[in-house]
Amino acid sequence: MDHRTDETIKKIDHIFNPRSVAYVGASGNPGKWGYITLSNLIAAGFGGPIYPINPKANEILGRKVYRSVEALPEVPDLAVIVVPPPSVVPAVRACGEKGIRAGIVITAGFAELGERSGGLQQELADAAREGGMVLVGPNCNGAMNPRAKVHIQFPPFLAPPGPIAVVSQSGNVVDSLARQIMLRGFGCSKCVSTGNEAVLHTEDYLRYLAQDPDTKVILSYIEGFKDGRRFLEVAGEVSRKKPIVMLKVGKTRAGARAAMSHTASIAGADSVFEAACRQAGVIRAEGLDDLLDIGLAFLRQPLPKGRRVGVVTSGGGWGVLAADASNERGFDVIPLPDEVLKELDGFLPAWWNRGNPVDLVAGSMGEPIFKCVDALLRSESVDAAMVMGIMTALAGKRHPTASDKDGRTRWGAELTQGVVDVMERFNGMAEQYEKPVIVATEHMFADAILESRIVHALGQSNSVCYSMPHRAVAVLDALTRYGKYVGRMGVA
Amino acid sequence: MDHRTDETIKKIDHIFNPRSVAYVGASGNPGKWGYITLSNLIAAGFGGPIYPINPKANEILGRKVYRSVEALPEVPDLAVIVVPPPSVVPAVRACGEKGIRAGIVITAGFAELGERSGGLQQELADAAREGGMVLVGPNCNGAMNPRAKVHIQFPPFLAPPGPIAVVSQSGNVVDSLARQIMLRGFGCSKCVSTGNEAVLHTEDYLRYLAQDPDTKVILSYIEGFKDGRRFLEVAGEVSRKKPIVMLKVGKTRAGARAAMSHTASIAGADSVFEAACRQAGVIRAEGLDDLLDIGLAFLRQPLPKGRRVGVVTSGGGWGVLAADASNERGFDVIPLPDEVLKELDGFLPAWWNRGNPVDLVAGSMGEPIFKCVDALLRSESVDAAMVMGIMTALAGKRHPTASDKDGRTRWGAELTQGVVDVMERFNGMAEQYEKPVIVATEHMFADAILESRIVHALGQSNSVCYSMPHRAVAVLDALTRYGKYVGRMGVA
Repeated sequence: MDHRTDETIKKIDHIFNPRSVAYVGASGNPGKWGYITLSNLIAAGFGGPIYPINPKANEILGRKVYRSVEALPEVPDLAVIVVPPPSVVPAVRACGEKGIRAGIVITAGFAELGERSGGLQQELADAAREGGMVLVGPNCNGAMNPRAKVHIQFPPFLAPPGPIAVVSQSGNVVDSLARQIMLRGFGCSKCVSTGNEAVLHTEDYLRYLAQDPDTKVILSYIEGFKDGRRFLEVAGEVSRKKPIVMLKVGKTRAGARAAMSHTASIAGADSVFEAACRQAGVIRAEGLDDLLDIGLAFLRQPLPKGRRVGVVTSGGGWGVLAADASNERGFDVIPLPDEVLKELDGFLPAWWNRGNPVDLVAGSMGEPIFKCVDALLRSESVDAAMVMGIMTALAGKRHPTASDKDGRTRWGAELTQGVVDVMERFNGMAEQYEKPVIVATEHMFADAILESRIVHALGQSNSVCYSMPHRAVAVLDALTRYGKYVGRMGVA
Repeated sequence: MDHRTDETIKKIDHIFNPRSVAYVGASGNPGKWGYITLSNLIAAGFGGPIYPINPKANEILGRKVYRSVEALPEVPDLAVIVVPPPSVVPAVRACGEKGIRAGIVITAGFAELGERSGGLQQELADAAREGGMVLVGPNCNGAMNPRAKVHIQFPPFLAPPGPIAVVSQSGNVVDSLARQIMLRGFGCSKCVSTGNEAVLHTEDYLRYLAQDPDTKVILSYIEGFKDGRRFLEVAGEVSRKKPIVMLKVGKTRAGARAAMSHTASIAGADSVFEAACRQAGVIRAEGLDDLLDIGLAFLRQPLPKGRRVGVVTSGGGWGVLAADASNERGFDVIPLPDEVLKELDGFLPAWWNRGNPVDLVAGSMGEPIFKCVDALLRSESVDAAMVMGIMTALAGKRHPTASDKDGRTRWGAELTQGVVDVMERFNGMAEQYEKPVIVATEHMFADAILESRIVHALGQSNSVCYSMPHRAVAVLDALTRYGKYVGRMGVA
């Protein structure tokens, strides 16, 4: 890491871990960004000084307001800039002169509007460089670091602290992901909406996150690259340390056009990006849901060493769906080796299907599902196990009648704990054998509310059940591709 | 419809609308199917006589038990058969002799076990034919008709009555779909797990459902056809009356192998099925989630006449995702015609992107989203509208603080009603212009529990918001394909 980059990382750290924050364009009007992002930072319980700046107000949200950047009593670590477009460049100049080294420009109206405003964006970049500043944006939705209680964004919720970082050119995609992460019981390390990337590019954040001890996996949404070569170079380095899962859009003509008018991004040929991803170890996701599903798997699962899978199913249909999806993605649903067949014969009923997927037919409640997965993982012919449906593992936890209210509440808590325990056993096996165990299941006896509680409880231990067979297979595919990259390149 | 088919339909109606039901192999052991399916029927509140049959018991679940089929005091409409495999054929013979015309054979252990048991299945089919009976199964999970309080299945829940029929060779797929339909606030007309299809095939149920006034759309999961030619002929007829959405599995070698050991289905070449679907107007789904998403759209949406779409988005990222997904599926995200641009200029802020997707930038709260969709639908250049994010339509419904508990409860109910109202406006426009309006949205300010309530409330009016841009586009694609078929073939 060269000296200049080292400096940049320090400055980026001012964005996520500021000791103090100035708001250029703070507002007392609840409809304005200069109010919303300020009130969110206060509501998050940020501990350091906050300096609203507005020449026409004395107090906003109970805070003393300053007339100008120059008038501030100290040099804050971070400036949030929410003034109208023509005032942004002067504001950045003032920040640079004051000695501020990091800024977030939320204001839109730059290169995304086309030619003329592209010039304004260049002026902005020049002003930042001359002032020695790094900038998030413009045309962005800010940044979050839940651990540091930094919440400079539009949505009224802050995900809890956790191991997942989000770097996205779209602000509403950050919101989508952060919200899903929160609803599923997981947490975020750092989130940033990178906007038009006049100064800091996606790869700069990646480099920062590579050395961030709180980040275990990086989710990224990108519409286009400012400097494709540099991105690749950085991504290739970062990938050796941490997985980067990326959703690249603007694949089609309509998408590319939309990306241009959204963040002034030039999408580029998709085939080029696809090849580059493979080379740099970036794991490509196919949609927002896929992006998150894959990211979550990296928190607990070991990387598979090959494509030979064993599937255990609690229902024939889900088994067929898993087998189809596995084959379609290039997995080998192996014929079970003799020693595995023999072992399974020992405890499964005589009429079991003796095939892969192993179908846990009626009569296999309780332990058999664990014994099957254990036998598969122990086999040298199997690189990964998949489990379709964990209902048999929860035998004895059938629900009480609807009229027994106390019973239902108790049972709901028991079922939730039961699912968490089942997943801990599978995660333990995965760890023991160093082979992934990917689970897709329904929570058949739970209503929607209990299901959301179960999902949340799982996330609290960084554990995840996928909702559908094909999604579990997509996740295993991503783990396998990354495992191959890491095996080839070595891990830092 | 020939005389024989007419007879078959009458007999199938005994399965879904029996006046009385016998259980051959009823059991007092709560772990047995002969108990579970019986107790579910009783718990559902089925009004007709139920006759448990078991030579060794006097009373089961408070019901008088009969020694044999012959000993029954009347000829019941339907016999559920849950005895062990060797006793199934004699039981069917006894039912036929008694005059029973419909049966459900839940018992497994037939053709799915291979050659030897295939013979037993042939015997079963012969016994049914000789007795003039239709049979569901064997190796199946029964049938449901919520309206008639018929619940002869394993899971402890019964979906409410509604317009969606499910015909599936896999029992656990019926359960998955019925549960999702229920959680999303919709209801089922008839559900059946068809199993090995020794007597009744998928196409028989399709023909029955075509004339069932309670069924508006048919969801089907299939592993293989017993008689491909006949299926196609029937499906082609039924499709002119009602949409059939089908998930066909066994596409790959591993999947086909799993299908064989699951329901003894021969999957056949996928390309052949694909071509046949197109010819017969069957809408093919890509996964279980896709199957349901598509099915729900048919309940309220008109069929588009072409592939020119207009998109309105409340966030840039979702707009790019929608544009990409649309182009990938062959939709034309048209450049907006001058008259539409001009109309939108009239009420959108000066800096709006003047493109498609229309990006509702900050400042467009409230009515603009409706005005945009209205302008798009009114244009002769647009065949369908998509809406990405309805947050701007809910302006003024921002959440109260976490500490205001009463406020939060009231607000939750208001938000739920707000979303329902917004969707009714879009559904109303769709009806008025006879062009679909497909909506994908997050419920950004709702937690998981409130979100599940909103989703449920929407389902209550057969209305649906999709969770992701690409899923909305997949649904519109299905509507468009079906619209093309119906346009070519005419609707009965």
